[in-house]
Order: sequence, then C-alpha cells, then structure tokens
Amino acid sequence: MSTVTEARLEPTGRTRINRGRNRAVADRAELLDLLADALVAHVGVQAPGTDGRPGHPVVLPTAYAVDVDGPDWGGTLYVHGSVAARWLRASVDRTVCVTVTELDGLVAGRSAFHHSMNYRSAVVIGRARLVDDPDERQHALDLIVDHMLPGRAATLRPSTRKELAATAVLAVPLHEASMKARAGGPVDEPEDVEAGVWGGHVPVRRVIDAPVPAEDNLPGLAVPDDVSGAGRTR
Amino acid sequence: MSTVTEARLEPTGRTRINRGRNRAVADRAELLDLLADALVAHVGVQAPGTDGRPGHPVVLPTAYAVDVDGPDWGGTLYVHGSVAARWLRASVDRTVCVTVTELDGLVAGRSAFHHSMNYRSAVVIGRARLVDDPDERQHALDLIVDHMLPGRAATLRPSTRKELAATAVLAVPLHEASMKARAGGPVDEPEDVEAGVWGGHVPVRRVIDAPVPAEDNLPGLAVPDDVSGAGRTR
Repeated sequence: MSTVTEARLEPTGRTRINRGRNRAVADRAELLDLLADALVAHVGVQAPGTDGRPGHPVVLPTAYAVDVDGPDWGGTLYVHGSVAARWLRASVDRTVCVTVTELDGLVAGRSAFHHSMNYRSAVVIGRARLVDDPDERQHALDLIVDHMLPGRAATLRPSTRKELAATAVLAVPLHEASMKARAGGPVDEPEDVEAGVWGGHVPVRRVIDAPVPAEDNLPGLAVPDDVSGAGRTR
Repeated sequence: MSTVTEARLEPTGRTRINRGRNRAVADRAELLDLLADALVAHVGVQAPGTDGRPGHPVVLPTAYAVDVDGPDWGGTLYVHGSVAARWLRASVDRTVCVTVTELDGLVAGRSAFHHSMNYRSAVVIGRARLVDDPDERQHALDLIVDHMLPGRAATLRPSTRKELAATAVLAVPLHEASMKARAGGPVDEPEDVEAGVWGGHVPVRRVIDAPVPAEDNLPGLAVPDDVSGAGRTR
C-alpha cells in the first residue's frame, strides 16, 4: 500500500499545493518531526542581477535549527552563515524558501510513469529577518550546533566577539509551511499488475557511523556523549 | 585532516563562489560523480506573484538524471513533473537553480564556530527548456528511471500517449555549474585543541535496504536484477 500525505499549515496562496489535495494531513507535528529528523536545508533566494544580467534563483544547502518556542507564530527556523556570504546578504528582509527533504525510498512501478520516490518534504516560505539581538543570536547558534549533535553546545566555550561578528543568523517564521510525504509501494495500472511485472519499493535510510577523532586530539580524550550519541538520536 | 574543495566549471558571475577560492579544484569529473551518486535535486524557481502578492522563490525536491552526451555543452540535466505542476510551468524558459547535495558527515569542532558538515554540493544555474521532441523526452524519462534503478527502463513497457501527455520534462544545461565539498575533521583554534576539547567528525551515509515487493505482485515473481542491484550500485 502507498500513502501520500500533505499537510497545509496556515495555507496561503504561496504554500498551498495545487495538486493532490486529497492527500492532506493536518498534523503540524509531522512537519516538526521532519525538521527534527533532517540535517540539511536548501535555502532558495532570488539573487540580484550582476554584470548587467537579470536576477535569478540560487539554492544552497545549509545547516539549520528550529525553535518551536521562537518569536514567530508557529515557531522560528534559523540558518546561519558567514557575514560575507552573498546568498545570506541577498536574503535579508526578502522572501526566501527553505525546503527540507528526507529521501525514504525508491518506488519501482510496473511502468516508467508510476516510478516514484518515498520522501518527506517541508517547504517554508517567509521573510528572512537578520537576527540582531545578541541573546537570540547566541541561542540560535546553540540550537544549530545541538541540532547536529544534541547536547554539544553546553560543553563548548562561549563564542568570541570576533566569531560572532563573522557570523550572520537569519530567522524565518514557520507559520507559512507545507508538507508533503509519500510512503509505501507503487500504485500501478491494473493491466500492468496482471501482466506479471514486478513492483515494489526499496527503502533508503541515513546511517550515522562511529565518530572519528581528530588527529590532533590530546592523548587520552574520550569521545564525549553528545558526539557518541549522534547515531542514537536519529 | 580536513579538505574543502571547490570546482568552478565555466565560472560566470552567477556561479562563481565568492569565498574560499583557495578551495578550488578543477575537476568536472567530481561534479558528474556527485550527480551520479545523489538521488534528489532541489530545484529553485522564482514563482510569479499571486493574489496581488509579489513573486518569491520556491524550492522543491525532485528526481533527476544527467545525460553527459546531451544536447547542451557540458551535458544536460533533466527533471520531470506533472504538466499541471505550477513550479514546472513557472520554470519554462526561465533561469532556474538546480542544487544537488550529499551529506557525508557532521564535524564536531572544539568551538561552536568550527562546527561544520562534510558534504558535496553542486549548484547548476541555467535556462530551463521544455523538452518538446518526443525522442528526447522519452530518452530523458528513461534516464530518470535508470538513475534511480539502473537498467530498469529497458524492462518496462513503452509509455502510453496519455502518460506522455501528462508528463513535462525540463532540460537544464550543465555548463554553468559550481561544486563545493568538505571532508575530514575540524579545523580549530590551537588554544581550543590545547585546552583538551575533543574534536572529530561523525560520518553519515545513505543505505539502500532490501527491496519490499508490492502486496499485489502476482505469485512467484522474483525481484528483478535492476531492483535488487540498487543497493550495490550506490
């Protein structure tokens, strides 16, 4: 059996998905679960034109974190980058799209048309706010570290002023978001099933392997719990 | 040791990466290797405004395939979708950005600032062409199926006219592309290393599990080689 679900959360003309409305699920928890599971976001921004050429979209991968109790209604998604990064400067006070996708499988249909993928994907559209407040910025950076390695941030020294000055943080409200997911096997034409073509799906998952210590670690250092636990928490 | 590489392939003002030029590698083969390894692309397009609101970027995950001998200089990247999909219609004859990312690890630095991810990412910017030619379209659809499950397309019946009429294929030239990659452990401040903070990295990889047959398969059907081989070819 296959399942395709779609959650529209505070749907607007921008995040409303114009196909498969019957696939709707209305559970915001699924969106937050996906954002907690995944590790990489793809941020899309309309880059300004250069060299006399018109603007164009740019999509870049980045780490991220979510504060469900953040300042925005529905929670806040944070991304960070170098203050020198062009994509980041082009995003400030502009509408951006942040998409987070987890691939869960390959679907082998009985025809090319019914091949598909199993996945979960969240699309967040919102105005990117440059985080100026020092407390919110430090909190966001801690969340981004802890999103990768839960518990790690509390074990680290505070960031220096120089480090903070080199880092920009953007906040995107989570209230304009949609989610789409597919799971299970193919949905084929009955005549292709009856013709005896094999159908099914191949699960895909992410594995986190054992930590590799840096070559310049001082002798005798044990792998800390936050790092050794990375594989258990996902 | 850590390695960060960046390949600029036919660099233009749009794909030139404005930071870390010393990270450059000039090997187009790395780009093609990544595009062969990965399974999901994120396509960014500037969606037209609706409901009196201005346009905004939209980033959506999609299957894709590459024809290194395609009609474009440097090869052609194909994506497909329903003819009814808004993002696809908004892409035709517009500049789009197609980004393909593989996450390879989490980097635990000795400070928040030096946390990072190991990854490979390709950014392709180009004008999306709607593929009208029936032969090129069928070829692209076969490539997309075979990208997921190598060898599968040749085992399937031809697409029907109805199926082809419901499917749109976009071609994006591969000649304006950049690639960035990071590998290895953290690069930390010497005083943090000497303070005895543990540093290292945690490898992340994708696993393809055993195929799951559809519940409605006819009795006695064996898993075909193209499907059972999916885990071996990646």
